[in-house]
Amino acid sequence: MDLTKLAVPIVQAPLAGGASTPELAAAVNAAGGLGFLAAGYKTTGAVREDIRKLRSLSEAPFGVNIFAPPAPVRDAAAIAAYADSLRRDAERHGTTLGDPRHDDDYFDAKVELACNEHVPVVSFTFGCPEPAVVRRLHEAGCDAWVTVTNPDEALLAQSVGADALVVQGFEAGGHRAYFTDSPDTEELGLLAALQLVRNRVGLPLVAAGAIADGTAVAAVLCAGAAAAQIGSALMLAPEAGTSEPHRAALAEEGSTRLTRAFSGRQARGIVNRFMREHDADAPAAYPDVHYLTTPIRNAARQAGDPERLNLWAGQAHALAVPAPAAEIVRGLGAEARDAAKSLALRLERAG
Amino acid sequence: MDLTKLAVPIVQAPLAGGASTPELAAAVNAAGGLGFLAAGYKTTGAVREDIRKLRSLSEAPFGVNIFAPPAPVRDAAAIAAYADSLRRDAERHGTTLGDPRHDDDYFDAKVELACNEHVPVVSFTFGCPEPAVVRRLHEAGCDAWVTVTNPDEALLAQSVGADALVVQGFEAGGHRAYFTDSPDTEELGLLAALQLVRNRVGLPLVAAGAIADGTAVAAVLCAGAAAAQIGSALMLAPEAGTSEPHRAALAEEGSTRLTRAFSGRQARGIVNRFMREHDADAPAAYPDVHYLTTPIRNAARQAGDPERLNLWAGQAHALAVPAPAAEIVRGLGAEARDAAKSLALRLERAG
Repeated sequence: MDLTKLAVPIVQAPLAGGASTPELAAAVNAAGGLGFLAAGYKTTGAVREDIRKLRSLSEAPFGVNIFAPPAPVRDAAAIAAYADSLRRDAERHGTTLGDPRHDDDYFDAKVELACNEHVPVVSFTFGCPEPAVVRRLHEAGCDAWVTVTNPDEALLAQSVGADALVVQGFEAGGHRAYFTDSPDTEELGLLAALQLVRNRVGLPLVAAGAIADGTAVAAVLCAGAAAAQIGSALMLAPEAGTSEPHRAALAEEGSTRLTRAFSGRQARGIVNRFMREHDADAPAAYPDVHYLTTPIRNAARQAGDPERLNLWAGQAHALAVPAPAAEIVRGLGAEARDAAKSLALRLERAG
Repeated sequence: MDLTKLAVPIVQAPLAGGASTPELAAAVNAAGGLGFLAAGYKTTGAVREDIRKLRSLSEAPFGVNIFAPPAPVRDAAAIAAYADSLRRDAERHGTTLGDPRHDDDYFDAKVELACNEHVPVVSFTFGCPEPAVVRRLHEAGCDAWVTVTNPDEALLAQSVGADALVVQGFEAGGHRAYFTDSPDTEELGLLAALQLVRNRVGLPLVAAGAIADGTAVAAVLCAGAAAAQIGSALMLAPEAGTSEPHRAALAEEGSTRLTRAFSGRQARGIVNRFMREHDADAPAAYPDVHYLTTPIRNAARQAGDPERLNLWAGQAHALAVPAPAAEIVRGLGAEARDAAKSLALRLERAG
């Protein structure tokens, strides 16, 4: 997959957890970008169906994102204490807490599926795959991408044979992709991360984090990315599976922050009541806490209650527009082209 | 001051607290950028001398940065408690704590000086000047710039008559410029801040935060900035007043984070022992805490001890190179021009 050959230098963010649909990926492909499917939180059978559906809608290459297995969780008592603090929220929505289990989201089966289906691009989030996994993907004709947040992760991903890196800035909506979720982790902004990673690693880079308009697409390409990954800016498209309360919140101005309250792993969402009430107590225990809060989030979503729902959003979410995905992607591409052209002219004249 | 007329679209960061010198500003001017002097932490007489010295070295326009008066500090008990926790550090360096006074860093006198000297650009950090201050500057022929961190601050600065805005991303080294230092403030990354501010305000923007190479300069210009502000990338220049232990730390890789430990206001520096030991206890009390810790920081600096010193640095500090400032500025400009040109060509071909 040569990213510089894309007609529009845009990669769709995988958008696990609701917004991802085959229709969205197909629309991004149709506009000349690279569509993506999210394998996360789905059964292997459901992912297979998504892949086949997408192939019925588009003949272009696409990607599938797989969650790398999470680190072991040590502190069962912290999870139990957090569960106690959540019971009232569950009761308020007439539901009970979920079972806080620790699993790997069918990692091996999903990698096998991707190989069997010869998925053009398989990206990983939450960790670095073993070299053997990358070799298997390569043998099946799949490119392997790894999502990283700093130069050390980039070097590790390069050492296992990754074909490209998604460089995620702390501005990005949804889960932070760091290999380890620790309070000591430096939160690098996207432009800083791009410069620092490019200084250490020669792989093609996809830039992710609050890229909402075409000028920002041009910006990350100037800074050395081969393509820009777009998430929040596509979530109001009719093809996206974004829930109604989530759509309403995305379209308004509203602060975002990182929180472990919903899933036990840092993720960026629009600040709401659940986040304010539970952020301080949430343990680093993913995906255990994800399963614990699932019934509350589902009930809130169905009730249209934005205050107890994970409203994942990047820092520039307020710039998202409700338009067909292909139109959004083409618009971003045209705006990026104009921005690069007029800057080149300005600097030419000055120099 | 028409920023698009600069031969190189680079504005020097003011670098209050040691690195700022008239020689550095003159060198940036000589390369075609806009040099800056820091009025912060200096007497009005010392600032006057710096202005005259710079004028003897360079005939080009320049800027002077003035700290806006800080908000009142409410919690004297918190400052006293923090002082108790610092006594051992002071003793270790054979000194005593400073007097935690609350002052406005001679705000009125410095504005008057800038007017009397007809300083071409006067920028403000830590708050928005009153409309009367901006009017006075305009009457004296000075442009007034305000440093902002989000769209609301940008709107306020526009309403008082600012001529341009410095948009500071959270990646930037040194103090965060927000008008209010509160735990609820959203920390916007530079690219997100540029997009959001540009969506609300039509003023010329100067982008600040971890811009370490020419590709990042081109990036922020693509995203709509008229110029890029450069701080850490100039701090190893021989013309900079950067202390030796600070130079050594800047040149190495090393995590940065925001802390109130040194000054009572969030500022980004390289993580060291003082930060690790005192960050959690430091109250939001600026400049009181600044004065409290001054003797410790001065003693550590003289002893060459990087562990009890404020090592202000942006997130991309490890990319700074020890070279003459004019050479750095010209190099950044040339690299930005190349990046914009090759991106324009690539997108032209794709489209």
